[in-house]
Amino acid sequence: MTVVPAINPRQAAVDIDPAFTDRWSPRAFDDAPLDDAQVAALFEAARWAPSSSNEQPWVFLFARSAEDRARFADLLSGGNRNWAPKAPLLLFLATRRTIARNGRVNRHAGFDAGAAWMSLALQARRLGLHAHAMGGFDQERAYVELGLDPATHELMAAIAVGRRADPVDVLPEDLVERERPNGRVETASFVFEGRMPADPEPVAG
Amino acid sequence: MTVVPAINPRQAAVDIDPAFTDRWSPRAFDDAPLDDAQVAALFEAARWAPSSSNEQPWVFLFARSAEDRARFADLLSGGNRNWAPKAPLLLFLATRRTIARNGRVNRHAGFDAGAAWMSLALQARRLGLHAHAMGGFDQERAYVELGLDPATHELMAAIAVGRRADPVDVLPEDLVERERPNGRVETASFVFEGRMPADPEPVAG
Repeated sequence: MTVVPAINPRQAAVDIDPAFTDRWSPRAFDDAPLDDAQVAALFEAARWAPSSSNEQPWVFLFARSAEDRARFADLLSGGNRNWAPKAPLLLFLATRRTIARNGRVNRHAGFDAGAAWMSLALQARRLGLHAHAMGGFDQERAYVELGLDPATHELMAAIAVGRRADPVDVLPEDLVERERPNGRVETASFVFEGRMPADPEPVAG
Repeated sequence: MTVVPAINPRQAAVDIDPAFTDRWSPRAFDDAPLDDAQVAALFEAARWAPSSSNEQPWVFLFARSAEDRARFADLLSGGNRNWAPKAPLLLFLATRRTIARNGRVNRHAGFDAGAAWMSLALQARRLGLHAHAMGGFDQERAYVELGLDPATHELMAAIAVGRRADPVDVLPEDLVERERPNGRVETASFVFEGRMPADPEPVAG
């Protein structure tokens, strides 16, 4: 297995737990399999995420076998197919659309699933792994292939998890150049006291 | 300030970072103000959350002054008004509905805001604080009072942040009894290999 130096140029503007800047979304994955304890720990971290009325609306479908990974990878869209299939663990994260006890639409399900995803991503780093979420996949085919009824469930993201590899060994040249942690806008552009200003500074996309 | 014992009965089923089971959503808050560095660290942690195309669609509005806290608390629904107004920091978390560079609807915004919320909640614990998200508030009045245009922004949650107080000192009796970390369903009820089973076990709400 290639040893990749753990260089991360992200600098927090104020002192925070380094876990937050240590987490990023690489594309260069080593295809060495994860062990059962690692996989279980990822889902266990997600399990303890908060959710509206403790509804826990998240559902994780995972692929570890060569056959399942190929099926999952085949649902990803163009760009993601150039790197994600290498990852030894592929996930789809969905939500249950309605609240179990009363059948009403759960308008917090996506938000709560985002919290579960963040927990999984941070636990991945604790295990020496990285997790990379993807919005780009064939929605229509994914519901069919994954056995999800779009009337009851909503797909939120695909996720690749694994150890990092040397980008030069596993990525096409254009992706090697982009293989680094990205930055963020300043806090002042998204945090406001008391109310939204009438003319906030435009936020870079 | 009352000293509250840091007892947490949550037990992870497999070994994970204890930060995840250490985080929960109390109602007994001490009204002692937070300092600037604490408030800045909460938003800094949220800042580094991942988002689709690094869009960073989250917006945080915060209340620290007595006047702003009263305005924010007045937007909360019934049950939350019995405990949340004590918290020295109240937040509303919203998203931008569209993608800055192309004006299209950002269907990942809520999910991404959930990741930012989780980061903030975990950073709160690092600071010796707790964060409690609430879905219950007056949607219609909140947009007006917070200066948010519902055509461009979507409110996701209200959040109370502060140090814990002794529940007996600050909560009505019925809430004192409920002041403990809640549990979770088993991982097996929301994690499936390869595809969704045709008849998954019903999940408790």
